[in-house]
Amino acid sequence: MRLTQWTDYSLRVLMYCAATENRPTPPTISEIAQAHGISRSHLTKIAMTLAANGWLETTRGRGGGLRLLKPADQIVLGTVVRQTETDFNLVECFDASLNTCRLDGLCLLKRTLKEAMAQYLAVLDGVTLADLVTPGQPPLGGQVISFSPRA
Amino acid sequence: MRLTQWTDYSLRVLMYCAATENRPTPPTISEIAQAHGISRSHLTKIAMTLAANGWLETTRGRGGGLRLLKPADQIVLGTVVRQTETDFNLVECFDASLNTCRLDGLCLLKRTLKEAMAQYLAVLDGVTLADLVTPGQPPLGGQVISFSPRA
Repeated sequence: MRLTQWTDYSLRVLMYCAATENRPTPPTISEIAQAHGISRSHLTKIAMTLAANGWLETTRGRGGGLRLLKPADQIVLGTVVRQTETDFNLVECFDASLNTCRLDGLCLLKRTLKEAMAQYLAVLDGVTLADLVTPGQPPLGGQVISFSPRA
Repeated sequence: MRLTQWTDYSLRVLMYCAATENRPTPPTISEIAQAHGISRSHLTKIAMTLAANGWLETTRGRGGGLRLLKPADQIVLGTVVRQTETDFNLVECFDASLNTCRLDGLCLLKRTLKEAMAQYLAVLDGVTLADLVTPGQPPLGGQVISFSPRA
């Protein structure tokens, strides 16, 4: 039971942008990649997808970088996770084309797991990006990476 | 966001046993493996683990097979899933030894995801194996595999 790495990294990018939104210059992909030890090319794909989905704007050149397109308190975690997490088929029988389960006709497992997932997402629907981060606060270790020079 | 195949198959074994608990002879691993199109050796490992964890008793020989050790209405889905699902580390930062996230100190994501998972499991804690199946009812397609000869 795990979110994908894609969702994990997408949330990190958005949270990084939220945590640094008061900076004069926005963070770049290189800065976030370096800060998290994630490959720059992988993070570029994630940032481009987040931009295509209307979460980020990206600007090139000096002083450019990634900015949230909406205030962090208007970005609902549940909405982001529903978009980044593509596989909500909790067990095989959620996908009719793959289902081999012979108990399908007499089994209420699917309905139970759907209800459980709805409750999971309901928690995320009550939380915004702003609730997750404190802008301008230093991260773990007290090192203020949010104001470090861009890599 | 998916349960493991191990959990999926474990639940199928337990539900199969619940659905057939009124039969004079219990289902065998071969019967369940054949009914679900799952490898017999894989299902043997799952059945042995379920037996070791106190959900099933296994008897050998003629008339032997798998039986639930408790009535199906006393087997709580949440308890089974907590045991079969070993990875509840929803994102990297749940595991301190693997965590590379630099936002750790200022991020409330972990707490939010833990709360969401608690709500997910709370739904499963309200459901027993008996709620999931109707004993003696035929599965998908109307074919009464629950009463077919053992393979």
